[in-house]
Amino acid sequence: MGADITEDVGRSVWYGWGNPARAAELPGHATAFLRTALELDSVAREHLPVRLDQVSLPESSLDESRLALFRDALGAEHVSTAAADRVLHAGGKSTPDLYRRRTGDAQAAPDAVLSPGSDEEIRKILEICVREHIAVTPFGGGTSVVGGVEPIRSAPNGQTFTAAVALDLGRMAQLLELDPVNRLATFQTGIRGPAIEAALAAHGFTLGHLPQSHQQATLGGYLATRSAGQASTGYGRSDALVRRLSLESPRGTLDLGGFAPATAAGPDLRSIVVGSEGTLGVITKATMAIVPQPEHKRHGAWAFADFESGTEALRALVQAGIPLPAVARLSDREETESTLRLAGGAKIAALRKYLALRGMPQPALALFVWEGGKAATAAARRQCSKLLRAAGAVYLSSAPAISWEHGRFSAPYLRDRLLDIGVLVETLETATSWDRLPALHEAVNQAILGAISDGGKSGWSQAHVSHVYPGGASLYFTFLAGQESDPLQQLQRIKAAASEAIVKERATITHHHAIGTDHAPYLAAEIGPLGVDVLRGIKAALDPTGIMNPGKLIPAMEEDQK
Amino acid sequence: MGADITEDVGRSVWYGWGNPARAAELPGHATAFLRTALELDSVAREHLPVRLDQVSLPESSLDESRLALFRDALGAEHVSTAAADRVLHAGGKSTPDLYRRRTGDAQAAPDAVLSPGSDEEIRKILEICVREHIAVTPFGGGTSVVGGVEPIRSAPNGQTFTAAVALDLGRMAQLLELDPVNRLATFQTGIRGPAIEAALAAHGFTLGHLPQSHQQATLGGYLATRSAGQASTGYGRSDALVRRLSLESPRGTLDLGGFAPATAAGPDLRSIVVGSEGTLGVITKATMAIVPQPEHKRHGAWAFADFESGTEALRALVQAGIPLPAVARLSDREETESTLRLAGGAKIAALRKYLALRGMPQPALALFVWEGGKAATAAARRQCSKLLRAAGAVYLSSAPAISWEHGRFSAPYLRDRLLDIGVLVETLETATSWDRLPALHEAVNQAILGAISDGGKSGWSQAHVSHVYPGGASLYFTFLAGQESDPLQQLQRIKAAASEAIVKERATITHHHAIGTDHAPYLAAEIGPLGVDVLRGIKAALDPTGIMNPGKLIPAMEEDQK
Repeated sequence: MGADITEDVGRSVWYGWGNPARAAELPGHATAFLRTALELDSVAREHLPVRLDQVSLPESSLDESRLALFRDALGAEHVSTAAADRVLHAGGKSTPDLYRRRTGDAQAAPDAVLSPGSDEEIRKILEICVREHIAVTPFGGGTSVVGGVEPIRSAPNGQTFTAAVALDLGRMAQLLELDPVNRLATFQTGIRGPAIEAALAAHGFTLGHLPQSHQQATLGGYLATRSAGQASTGYGRSDALVRRLSLESPRGTLDLGGFAPATAAGPDLRSIVVGSEGTLGVITKATMAIVPQPEHKRHGAWAFADFESGTEALRALVQAGIPLPAVARLSDREETESTLRLAGGAKIAALRKYLALRGMPQPALALFVWEGGKAATAAARRQCSKLLRAAGAVYLSSAPAISWEHGRFSAPYLRDRLLDIGVLVETLETATSWDRLPALHEAVNQAILGAISDGGKSGWSQAHVSHVYPGGASLYFTFLAGQESDPLQQLQRIKAAASEAIVKERATITHHHAIGTDHAPYLAAEIGPLGVDVLRGIKAALDPTGIMNPGKLIPAMEEDQK
Repeated sequence: MGADITEDVGRSVWYGWGNPARAAELPGHATAFLRTALELDSVAREHLPVRLDQVSLPESSLDESRLALFRDALGAEHVSTAAADRVLHAGGKSTPDLYRRRTGDAQAAPDAVLSPGSDEEIRKILEICVREHIAVTPFGGGTSVVGGVEPIRSAPNGQTFTAAVALDLGRMAQLLELDPVNRLATFQTGIRGPAIEAALAAHGFTLGHLPQSHQQATLGGYLATRSAGQASTGYGRSDALVRRLSLESPRGTLDLGGFAPATAAGPDLRSIVVGSEGTLGVITKATMAIVPQPEHKRHGAWAFADFESGTEALRALVQAGIPLPAVARLSDREETESTLRLAGGAKIAALRKYLALRGMPQPALALFVWEGGKAATAAARRQCSKLLRAAGAVYLSSAPAISWEHGRFSAPYLRDRLLDIGVLVETLETATSWDRLPALHEAVNQAILGAISDGGKSGWSQAHVSHVYPGGASLYFTFLAGQESDPLQQLQRIKAAASEAIVKERATITHHHAIGTDHAPYLAAEIGPLGVDVLRGIKAALDPTGIMNPGKLIPAMEEDQK
């Protein structure tokens, strides 16, 4: 019923999200909706990407003698200066990243792409890079949407490097140990989402960590960014699932988390590696908590009169002490509206009529997926249903949740198509406490729409809650706009407005996308200048020459006071 | 039924665990058991503590001019050099600590006891201490059993200080904010366990964090040591319950954890404060996740043929995906034996006969407490019961679990009485994965008994599992021995043997007692020399002159390679 979570879809292309063969065309009613909502004159495919040979790529600043150092360490076939490799590693998959690649800009490309096959080879790379003062950016699935994998030769702190390399973990992708007794699995961190699940499925287990980037992203990327999957309400975030990890830093190997399931032996140093975004070293191995594959799934969708009553119901659910669904999502009115519009058809028209009669002309849609034993999922769904009805929800059917699950990884493919027709689409996310959620929702929505209209365009902004906690929830925004003459400036303006609204509301600048370069100026607002100093102290202990992923996470000194 | 978790029992005395009025006499059959088990000639009260005026206390090295600095900052009444205050703050409550106090040794006493009333006053104290190079030991309930609150003027890293002060948080003990919407409570960290529960009970909530030290210990101490309570299987460890915290460090205030219930904004810096044992600064405020007080409790006790089958059953329980009890404990044969002996009476004799007939002549006793709604606790107990029976357990009754709960905080009082009669009793604890648990249990038991018999005494060693996780469990050992002529050397020898066995088995040196001074030499075995260096880097960022609780947590340089 759901998307196959073990399916290898191939590596993503340099100019877009995914395998172009998998990108569906936009249906006619979808383009019609876009044309109206964004007041577009044209939605033709006039913005197709350039060809690879048209991409502007700087000369590699690594001469033959320095390349030879890497070739000696890794074997010549694992040191690439080919344009295709360099362009693919020039950045992540934010809309600005894709726009730059599609329009032929790969100025940020690394001088070489290194593909080590072992921890020992990673140690050799780091030794060479310390000696030669070369910046190293660890690269997993390359799906960062915050500038986390873009090579930087001149960091905001004033440091400059003689070259920059991407350290691609793609060859280090094995399940190293499956421990069914203690419910643990140890992987090399270059393993991608589907391969994780395929390896575990062979033993009857699952990790249950399924972000939208699952088909491309790697375990190392999950941990480096403190990611949360779509089913984290049931299975837990990456930071809660990791038990042991190994980091290769310029100062040596850090192995953390022993056999003990819990300890009071000082601060939990795993927590400084998780979320370190490649700035301390390369996470090479990780041991994750696993659980048996669920025997059974149940789905359900409910409508609320508005987003506020929906969030109150989610709060009641997560605080009720009843077994939680694996997935709990609530769309605001706008996201519900676009979901219904994009689905289209007679059934949807009938549904709208029904909901209007029930006093819900502009409903907010809530989707749930339960996973586990047959009796347990049925009981959990029953308890949830009772609670939602008491909160004013109207039950729809299983179909919307099944449909969501089927397309759970496909939204980013749609972005490629939208870019083809000159429509900018981007996402951003945050989180806050339950009581502050409505104001945050309103403020960020207004900031996004205001910044879009400042450029003279009509825009669309929608949001959903996808991660719920007893103390609050995440908010994930998607916005669309016709592109201005300078789309990069346009996107930056919208993103800045949204980020400033988030900071003003004292919410987190990111719930699961991480800091990268894009959010670095806002980090001090969250952990204070002294917190940033602590990060610098940790980095100095592990990466004293600063070669590890410069410019990411840690803001420049003058940004501390922001 | 259980001990009153809101009852203020008064502050503990300088020479022992608790309020002497609450210490029960040992029943006759208990002394008989001890006499046999430990082969003691005498169990008379010949080892009573000295009087306070007999305690050897060094002159305060703070002269009037320096005391005046503190008096100006705090008010004269909150700066004490009185013997009673200095002796109470000379150390924690390990058996060596108590032995030293009881025999009149308070050489480690601080030069003054400072009792700030606000964060501002703490900042003033730290400023003075940086300037004057005075060591500062934060002091909450003073229940450390690992040397965590003993003032040190000459740290193992070679640093020496002009004086040492205890910073007592006792005046900072308020509930600052109760947030029922997001299920959070913010406290000043000097608040003690019963006051936490009393403040929350007034609003219908509980923290559910109930270590054996609950009646004395403070919230700040919980967080500084990453403590786990007896009900952590149900309610979670302190590190899992904390949402926000404030640290006053010599370099300023660190406020961590905003309104967001989760974030990907870089590494979780709360995790470097939690477990920092006062070495980075003073934790002044903490916001904790709270839950509604349970409506209902259910108890149950089962017997297993041996400890190994009991641990297998606990593993099955915690991995079954069913609602877990708040408390799950399993005693080994020796602890079960001593529990039965200390209970005594005809009922126990009948029980033994019954279990022998069921093939359990040397049973291992398992106790459980469920808390929550009436239907939910009944259902959880039923599911657990089914699982335990399938694992070979024999149901006893609710009584042993109710009896355990009644006396849950009383064991340390018993220690005072045992010391009175010349019996040394001490505890130590560790944790490991399920598959390694039997070997760890055996190795530590043998190490303890071997080290006791090396001194020519007979000993008793027993253990229990009290914290279970999908990936493993804790092991808590209690040992008893008649005292040798040099009990401090005797205790140190036994502790070293046990610690070395733990390290050899690659278990954690502490599951919930923390590092302090006693475990510092073993930390590098757990997090590596590079991990220790990271701790030094963090400390340098927050406490560059090293005044905060020197000698604790971070081992001396030469111990890194241990």
